[in-house]
Amino acid sequence: MIKNIFDDSLSSLPKGNADFLLAASVTRTCELEGITQAGIPGKIPLTPALDAEFIVNQKVFSLGELAETPTGVPTPALMTRAVHNLRSFTSIEILDLGLDTKPQNCRIHDFEISPSKAINKGADINAQELFYKGMKFGREYELKGNYLILGESTPSGTTTAAATALALGYELEECFSSSFLNVPNKIRKKTLDEALSLVNEKMSSFEKLGTASDNMLIFCAGFLLEATKRFHVVLAGGTQMAACLLVADKLREDVLMRLNSDNLTLATTAWVAKDKNSDIKKILSQLSYTPNALYAEFSFASAEIPILKKYDEGEAKEGVGAGAALAYGFSNALTNEQIVKEIEAIMYGM
Amino acid sequence: MIKNIFDDSLSSLPKGNADFLLAASVTRTCELEGITQAGIPGKIPLTPALDAEFIVNQKVFSLGELAETPTGVPTPALMTRAVHNLRSFTSIEILDLGLDTKPQNCRIHDFEISPSKAINKGADINAQELFYKGMKFGREYELKGNYLILGESTPSGTTTAAATALALGYELEECFSSSFLNVPNKIRKKTLDEALSLVNEKMSSFEKLGTASDNMLIFCAGFLLEATKRFHVVLAGGTQMAACLLVADKLREDVLMRLNSDNLTLATTAWVAKDKNSDIKKILSQLSYTPNALYAEFSFASAEIPILKKYDEGEAKEGVGAGAALAYGFSNALTNEQIVKEIEAIMYGM
Repeated sequence: MIKNIFDDSLSSLPKGNADFLLAASVTRTCELEGITQAGIPGKIPLTPALDAEFIVNQKVFSLGELAETPTGVPTPALMTRAVHNLRSFTSIEILDLGLDTKPQNCRIHDFEISPSKAINKGADINAQELFYKGMKFGREYELKGNYLILGESTPSGTTTAAATALALGYELEECFSSSFLNVPNKIRKKTLDEALSLVNEKMSSFEKLGTASDNMLIFCAGFLLEATKRFHVVLAGGTQMAACLLVADKLREDVLMRLNSDNLTLATTAWVAKDKNSDIKKILSQLSYTPNALYAEFSFASAEIPILKKYDEGEAKEGVGAGAALAYGFSNALTNEQIVKEIEAIMYGM
Repeated sequence: MIKNIFDDSLSSLPKGNADFLLAASVTRTCELEGITQAGIPGKIPLTPALDAEFIVNQKVFSLGELAETPTGVPTPALMTRAVHNLRSFTSIEILDLGLDTKPQNCRIHDFEISPSKAINKGADINAQELFYKGMKFGREYELKGNYLILGESTPSGTTTAAATALALGYELEECFSSSFLNVPNKIRKKTLDEALSLVNEKMSSFEKLGTASDNMLIFCAGFLLEATKRFHVVLAGGTQMAACLLVADKLREDVLMRLNSDNLTLATTAWVAKDKNSDIKKILSQLSYTPNALYAEFSFASAEIPILKKYDEGEAKEGVGAGAALAYGFSNALTNEQIVKEIEAIMYGM
């Protein structure tokens, strides 16, 4: 079932076939020890490339194994791929928004973007240039199906999303999710404090973002402002994508644009929507409009592979477009049971 | 249902997920007036690019409309894409074996091959070099799923396939299929006669192929000799792919190789298997081994869109891997009815 984030009423995605784009980026923030579990320890910056390879090919090439958390929870990319197997996306393409490792065997859009630096020392992003690159791609992307799902893979992205919101002046410190069940608040808080100490009131929004944000948020904010003029965009993610909406809402004033919010939906998982350690509703309530926002009510209760049930306990939660992919599956008459079985078939085959 | 070509007994594809490769090529033979109906008159050489774009994106970019025959029968690529929508291939990639127009929004393997000339004046192919390129790719292609489906899009390819078999000395003149219900025997015979007049007994097999064949047949023959050492290859097509097996069988003597025929299956449609104007069984019987060969028993009897029923009458018949794709769908528990409905949903959406 697909439900409205705000009131749990029944909701839905647009009709028809969706293209899937993965906004893949690295922020060196992910290399701060203990900040994320989105990947293999010591090789976290590989995660976006592995996620990209996996959703496109159901196989990884840049490393022998698929990314999983240290507790063994496999990447949410599994859900995205399982839905694709049962009801394919019109196409799957990758946006290289600053990667160390180029994903193999993928269709990649290259924007000549480098990984951003760790926010505790300043991200050092040319935010205006990056935002304009996003806008340009939003004007140019050739839609294949009826609408677009835009997912992301950015390890430590919930931390940079929190820094982004705080740097822009939103009072949302406790609202951001994490891939951890037990959020590592100490290292996270230290990182946020250090990042925010580099930001001041005299800076423009672009300067603040260039210091405390990540490539994915800034590029996608530019992208959706333009793309939603032409077609419906489903932002696939949790609190990170909610932060992307904050960025777009703030920057559209700088570039004097209206946002066509009718053509925009945020879609996430129930694990994010109902997470007690974060508050996506509160983030979304800061927007100048009420956004379409939904979650897929999906569960691994029927799974045979025990580690998958960790999702239902709150590990990992979201990423690589999993929530929107599940909603896409439900929209196309797939059942929770079919999707669980397909995920397990993929895992047994690996 | 999937059936054995030779005795109509029940047959099956390998288990698991299949990668899909499309061998796309142009022979200028297709520009001889009246020789093919695989495309839009005057723009036949565009057909492989449009087929590639369509199976990858469910949309064409290089022209406003999808290829269809002059009588309005839409490309068999529709069947391939419909199956992908309901049970996705692990990946879909395109082999550029000599195209005028590069397909847009596709993953393309580029081998620096030019379209071959019309066989009535000599195809002018460096067959040995091309065959070795195919062998090299057969050693290097990185399999994603459990096996590979190799389809083709080569307008007028049944004519060049017939010329190929005859040039190599097989007495199979009446055995080759056509995209026409009523085969244009006059222009076809003239073309074959002219092509064969350029071939003589003193020529090596490579020289004969370089004169009377097409890029797809020669490259794929090299490819399958090597690839079948590593994984199962399903040659997806009718009499053209049967000719490809003849080429491989002949050339493996020149390169002193064994063919691992256990790892090879030809898969086509019932429209080819039961075609009264051609004889795929007889072609296959010329091989030095008995090949795995099957067809998908699929019908448009339940279709709402009348033009689709032309397939059941014998128009178009096969191409772009349609037969193997249908068999892949059946192998994954899709029904004839589901596939027909998906094909119609795609057509209604265009």
